[in-house]
Amino acid sequence: MVPDSTAALIGEPTDHTVDIGAALRKGASIQVTYKQQAQEIGMSIPEGPTVFLKPNTALAGPYPEPVILPKLTQADNCGDYESELGVVVGKTAKNVSEADALDYVLGYTACNGLQWCFSKGFDSACPIGPTLASKDAVPNPSAFRVRDLKNGKAVQDCGVDDLIFSVPKIMSFLSQSTTLLPGTLILTGTPAGVGMGKTPKESLQDGDEFSVEILPYVGTLTSIFRDE
Amino acid sequence: MVPDSTAALIGEPTDHTVDIGAALRKGASIQVTYKQQAQEIGMSIPEGPTVFLKPNTALAGPYPEPVILPKLTQADNCGDYESELGVVVGKTAKNVSEADALDYVLGYTACNGLQWCFSKGFDSACPIGPTLASKDAVPNPSAFRVRDLKNGKAVQDCGVDDLIFSVPKIMSFLSQSTTLLPGTLILTGTPAGVGMGKTPKESLQDGDEFSVEILPYVGTLTSIFRDE
Repeated sequence: MVPDSTAALIGEPTDHTVDIGAALRKGASIQVTYKQQAQEIGMSIPEGPTVFLKPNTALAGPYPEPVILPKLTQADNCGDYESELGVVVGKTAKNVSEADALDYVLGYTACNGLQWCFSKGFDSACPIGPTLASKDAVPNPSAFRVRDLKNGKAVQDCGVDDLIFSVPKIMSFLSQSTTLLPGTLILTGTPAGVGMGKTPKESLQDGDEFSVEILPYVGTLTSIFRDE
Repeated sequence: MVPDSTAALIGEPTDHTVDIGAALRKGASIQVTYKQQAQEIGMSIPEGPTVFLKPNTALAGPYPEPVILPKLTQADNCGDYESELGVVVGKTAKNVSEADALDYVLGYTACNGLQWCFSKGFDSACPIGPTLASKDAVPNPSAFRVRDLKNGKAVQDCGVDDLIFSVPKIMSFLSQSTTLLPGTLILTGTPAGVGMGKTPKESLQDGDEFSVEILPYVGTLTSIFRDE
């Protein structure tokens, strides 16, 4: 790992060697989705969204279904939470405009994006739920609020209107030259306050309980973390 | 885009603003899979494989099925080829050892990984074929050779034994804490010689013909590129 490329590994799903705090402090412009988050770590606003994929094998339900922390994550002490609004696509979308994007939404849910290290795609790395709020109940997803509790203590709290790229902008962007199939789940990124951004960093441990709240309508996605 | 984070965007599927040549020259350590390629661009050998996912909507067959170059790719003049050995998983694999990894292979094929810019996941961004060589015919995938022709002219030519991480190593790595389902297609990375590494860079244009050869057994995957 050459020192100048530390920043290159932010968001890279499988690297588990990078010091994310150091990389963030270098001003990497990827994987920042909320304005408050950009301010928190002194980063510039990116020119466009940054995207990666998770496999569907990463999906997990709410408590009592556990999230299993991989051995590599335990070794690097880098399990982290990322409370996120999830958007479920309801109709096949390709090259849709920002103005039309919400027409393709089925509903909204809560997601925990998880993990700087090893992988964002390991089995159970994408807990979602507990409900899907119909788009009919939510004319404007900017009205959602993302909050969370780590072992009962509030850590993140931010309005979705703080997103650098709005939900329609993200959907339009993702659909350019690319088919979004019904059932596609779009995670919209996490606000300021993740554990890896703290000094010293705070990582998830065996037995931790973490709850993502998407308000109103969606409710609370609770997960218990267990070591592999 | 802050200058110091240019390298951060190599391999990032959706960014279309980065000067990859400049980023590579800065010594980014991601997405280098062949030793010759690391030498070609003066990069250090990475400590572990780097992984990203393509959606299955990106799959395309051989000629006459075209690869459609997205408008964003055309605008940035950055369509690129990446000739790669493809490995198809035949049995569910999780936490497999390097020694056992090849037991989970169904067979091998040719792939064109495509694209530095916009996305590696746009519709038709993953042409594969034309055949699947059974693992029974190929006891050791290091014996494969990856070659290609751009409009009839040879551009890449490398033995798979030059991989920094061997096929069994890659498979074992990918299966850690993560289920690989039957039918999963693993692209193993491209050797030295891609167009973005040349001075001046050479990008794919409407009408270009590109053939990936995986020898022996697999044969030649030919694609014609068309502007969206």
